[in-house]
Amino acid sequence: VRISELARRTDLPVGTIKYYLREGLLPPGTLTSTTQASYDAEHVRRLGLIRVLIGVGGLSIARARAVLAAIDSPPRPGIPHDLLGTAHAAIGPEVPAGEEALARARALVARWGWADVEKAPALSQLAAALEGIEAADVPLSDATLDRYAALMARVAEVDLASVPTGSPAEAVRFVVAGTVLFEPMLLAMRRLAQWGASVERFGPGGAS
Amino acid sequence: VRISELARRTDLPVGTIKYYLREGLLPPGTLTSTTQASYDAEHVRRLGLIRVLIGVGGLSIARARAVLAAIDSPPRPGIPHDLLGTAHAAIGPEVPAGEEALARARALVARWGWADVEKAPALSQLAAALEGIEAADVPLSDATLDRYAALMARVAEVDLASVPTGSPAEAVRFVVAGTVLFEPMLLAMRRLAQWGASVERFGPGGAS
Repeated sequence: VRISELARRTDLPVGTIKYYLREGLLPPGTLTSTTQASYDAEHVRRLGLIRVLIGVGGLSIARARAVLAAIDSPPRPGIPHDLLGTAHAAIGPEVPAGEEALARARALVARWGWADVEKAPALSQLAAALEGIEAADVPLSDATLDRYAALMARVAEVDLASVPTGSPAEAVRFVVAGTVLFEPMLLAMRRLAQWGASVERFGPGGAS
Repeated sequence: VRISELARRTDLPVGTIKYYLREGLLPPGTLTSTTQASYDAEHVRRLGLIRVLIGVGGLSIARARAVLAAIDSPPRPGIPHDLLGTAHAAIGPEVPAGEEALARARALVARWGWADVEKAPALSQLAAALEGIEAADVPLSDATLDRYAALMARVAEVDLASVPTGSPAEAVRFVVAGTVLFEPMLLAMRRLAQWGASVERFGPGGAS
């Protein structure tokens, strides 16, 4: 179909689609004349993903491009693991953490039995988060940390169990999109569950 | 102490501290002369919290001000619940969701037994996240959603069990800071646990 029809189907302005083409997020269509190109269902699907990464995921154009490049790269043995690193690095945030905090994060992760995370970008994310909690003087015991870690390990199990095994391309797409898209969902669930538990404990009066 | 000493203790430039004073994030010190003010340990603590909200939490000045106002507001009966709404609203993100997605989120939350969430700002956050996942064509079954929800409900239980009950001011501070600060920690844990589980399953080779 032509770009005007692609715009209609995806509910995006033609200018936005041209912008994504220029920025290399959307692969070019098939040239049907010197001035016209044709687009297919794969373009519709891709635009849905782009919109989600930038809209829901809140990624910049540059980060969205990196995530899409990871999705497009040819699958190799050990993909999900390889992919996780690319996805995590592309999504960020890159947070610098002090050596002391990093050492603490490493020790915790070792205690939780999560293997070989030295190269995982999320290690400094955890270290910085713990640094922040300490700096804000928010009490957080080791026992509570362990409880959170055990629950998030079970979330990760659900994540990995859901990876489609049929097609490598689908697996790759799922891992990357799942990392970006499931995070806001999980955080929303946590907040709603807090709310529900709090209403049960304190009554609905306070929320008016 | 004087502002120069406050800067030294908090490792922040004097200009930044003056900026936080002007923006109303940091309460003024006690005037000791017409041109000098004196700051105390509470100012040191407050600056630690401000840095964390803006740095680790990634809040804007306006959102940080709203969160701090919630922390400062006098405690009332039913605080944690009331506070949750304020904290969630201040932290955002405010994500618009379609009516259809909202209806779906409402139905799910009812199935999970989380009470009285109609006014919870996180309801549209959940709806928008689910909308995004669907738009990206990422497969996510109801059974998997239920599994995630059950785990996040247990995370919320740990959250609420940790709220200090001694002083209302501390409880308030903990609820707000915990919401902002624990989110990056939980997400980092999830990513690290994914990584560890993926290494176990696929071997460390891919991550080089």
